[in-house]
Amino acid sequence: MAMSDLLFANHLSFARLLWGQLLKLGDLAIDATCGNGHDTLALSKLVLTPVAGKVIGCDIQQTALENTRERLKEQLLPHQLKRIELHLISHAAITSIIGDESPRLVVFNLGYLPGGDKSLTTRLETTLEALRHLLPLVQKGGAISLTCYRGHPEGEREERALLEFAKRDLPSHWIPSHHRWPRQERSPSLLFLQCAGGSL
Amino acid sequence: MAMSDLLFANHLSFARLLWGQLLKLGDLAIDATCGNGHDTLALSKLVLTPVAGKVIGCDIQQTALENTRERLKEQLLPHQLKRIELHLISHAAITSIIGDESPRLVVFNLGYLPGGDKSLTTRLETTLEALRHLLPLVQKGGAISLTCYRGHPEGEREERALLEFAKRDLPSHWIPSHHRWPRQERSPSLLFLQCAGGSL
Repeated sequence: MAMSDLLFANHLSFARLLWGQLLKLGDLAIDATCGNGHDTLALSKLVLTPVAGKVIGCDIQQTALENTRERLKEQLLPHQLKRIELHLISHAAITSIIGDESPRLVVFNLGYLPGGDKSLTTRLETTLEALRHLLPLVQKGGAISLTCYRGHPEGEREERALLEFAKRDLPSHWIPSHHRWPRQERSPSLLFLQCAGGSL
Repeated sequence: MAMSDLLFANHLSFARLLWGQLLKLGDLAIDATCGNGHDTLALSKLVLTPVAGKVIGCDIQQTALENTRERLKEQLLPHQLKRIELHLISHAAITSIIGDESPRLVVFNLGYLPGGDKSLTTRLETTLEALRHLLPLVQKGGAISLTCYRGHPEGEREERALLEFAKRDLPSHWIPSHHRWPRQERSPSLLFLQCAGGSL
């Protein structure tokens, strides 16, 4: 029996399970940190039809966007590619390129570009700034999905700070949940924030 | 917008989401701790057809089984009720009443019967004993779902011990994940153990 036969085997397949449950064809989904484009591709497959749906991808590294574009070209059809925007900006600036449509899901993959320059860790301050700006924009019933890499000191500090933010600063109509794989102490975790809309 | 429009709003709806993804009609599901029968009912709806599926429910309190039976009778059809067994035993003794069929899911709701005698907290030792006996019986691809009530000292001790068990004693082909709602420090958590089968 392969691990892939499980409901989910790790933070990756667990996040995909939640995204698949949440997103419908035609939704707007945002990948705030493209990295190598794996998540951008997964989101595209969940929301894009020939005539509806949109994916916005961002990264601060040109290489990340190039790798993402390459991956998307290999796997998607031209009519799907037309419905994807890739932007070379920090995720703290995402709100500037979101139009009138409310995103159903925003995905953050924190930490550094796999295989890239490890000094370019996602800075905690820009992550929190991005979150504060995005919270009012996400659809009611929508979510923000943050994968935290606890395997390096910056990632661990980031996870702790995000949990503090979720406990103390998140508006009361947002529901945070935190998902961990306890066998490996340094295994990535998922912080999933859902917007119930209005005050509860 | 109601909380029920979210993918999941708390440990209860999250657990139901996972169970719904995992179980198919015709499966064997076990409620190791019936309590007031809410979970027994949810499992029954997911696996029972007129001719297939089975639910086994256990509790150490007669009141719990009576409440469960009452709830099931109100909500299910006679052909479904025939496919449910309720047993007045400790969950540590569950394996004695499982036949040849492998359960797809075993559900534990730890702690005390809501509204019942609070001195009857589930004892950590019996929980661990039950787990050790059940692990070899669960289907490959199946799972054990444990809701931990951290709101009272015994529950908190139980959660810590179960996490230690998941980290150190769980066979390597089992994948543990731990799901928490960080806003309320004492909110119940879900420990979800999945069986990948064989050695990885």
